[in-house]
Amino acid sequence: MENHIAPVPLDKAYRLLNHGPTVLVSARAGGTDNVMAAAWACALDYAPPKLTVVLDKIAKTRELVEKSGRLAIQVPTVAQLDLTYKVGHRSLFDEPDKLERSGVTLFDMEGHDLPFVAGCSAWLACSVIAEPSNEQTYDLFIAEIKAAWSDTRVFKNGHWNFETADPGLRSLHYIAGGRFYAIGESLDATEGKSQ
Amino acid sequence: MENHIAPVPLDKAYRLLNHGPTVLVSARAGGTDNVMAAAWACALDYAPPKLTVVLDKIAKTRELVEKSGRLAIQVPTVAQLDLTYKVGHRSLFDEPDKLERSGVTLFDMEGHDLPFVAGCSAWLACSVIAEPSNEQTYDLFIAEIKAAWSDTRVFKNGHWNFETADPGLRSLHYIAGGRFYAIGESLDATEGKSQ
Repeated sequence: MENHIAPVPLDKAYRLLNHGPTVLVSARAGGTDNVMAAAWACALDYAPPKLTVVLDKIAKTRELVEKSGRLAIQVPTVAQLDLTYKVGHRSLFDEPDKLERSGVTLFDMEGHDLPFVAGCSAWLACSVIAEPSNEQTYDLFIAEIKAAWSDTRVFKNGHWNFETADPGLRSLHYIAGGRFYAIGESLDATEGKSQ
Repeated sequence: MENHIAPVPLDKAYRLLNHGPTVLVSARAGGTDNVMAAAWACALDYAPPKLTVVLDKIAKTRELVEKSGRLAIQVPTVAQLDLTYKVGHRSLFDEPDKLERSGVTLFDMEGHDLPFVAGCSAWLACSVIAEPSNEQTYDLFIAEIKAAWSDTRVFKNGHWNFETADPGLRSLHYIAGGRFYAIGESLDATEGKSQ
């Protein structure tokens, strides 16, 4: 799987999130790794690329993000439907073996001390921009994207190719109660032109 | 069209945005109405429901939001593909007849002095929670959702029904260069249960 991973230029990194996928958030601190799901993650800026993500105070992953100042954001796939639901509804506080039981395999990216989730379609290595008031009042974290990668079978040369890739590589968009939607067909506005 | 509009309970309002659609942002101040598109809008909280939206300093709509303290967020549909692209790529500063030229029809919701865009699948009336530092530093606005409505042909009883509704009512998810994706098929996690 990891043979298909290639870097995404930072000026194209926002495109990995622009269509609003549910993401996986992972973090590492003090020898502990964790992964959670988040529907509330969003691009915030192009250059340097930034994003927002909402991390509830009850989440173990938030504790690791606060300790390390770093997090990885990943775009999970249709093939990871149950994994995404499980890491979003189990807590490392209650289940120390949460990751194994959720089917998560972690891997490393050279130069980034973060736990990346295998099998996703995109990965973003981020550093938190400390905004304590946002974090305390709204559970809202702002982070700068320091590096990005994609699975080239579905995102290549700055473009998603959901319409031609394996349907199992489509992004997930969570609603509630275990119900997700996969991303669907591509549509081009009449006045647009692909960049 | 407007015959199909019904209120959405505030505790379900986050579901209108949870799958990450590109939205239309509209605002009214001093006798001027405007509408823009935003891919960077995201749910922020359940109760009271809040959202974030990124409004660039060059946007006329931002000026109206800053003057009035209010904005409407709407979920446009596949049938509104060109409208969504056009309001996102034309400025009221340059084109005073931008809304007419983009095919926008506005309508009123009783009790809310905001310009709502006809033909969308969902509408959220919001009040800005003033956070000047976020607004200046990041162009990031936080707003509380005060009321919400949906087109019941595609969102009813707290649930999206994209899989059974007219495909023209599906949500749009923007990438870049005029390329959007429609939301696709529904998927239920094995351990989930519809709420």
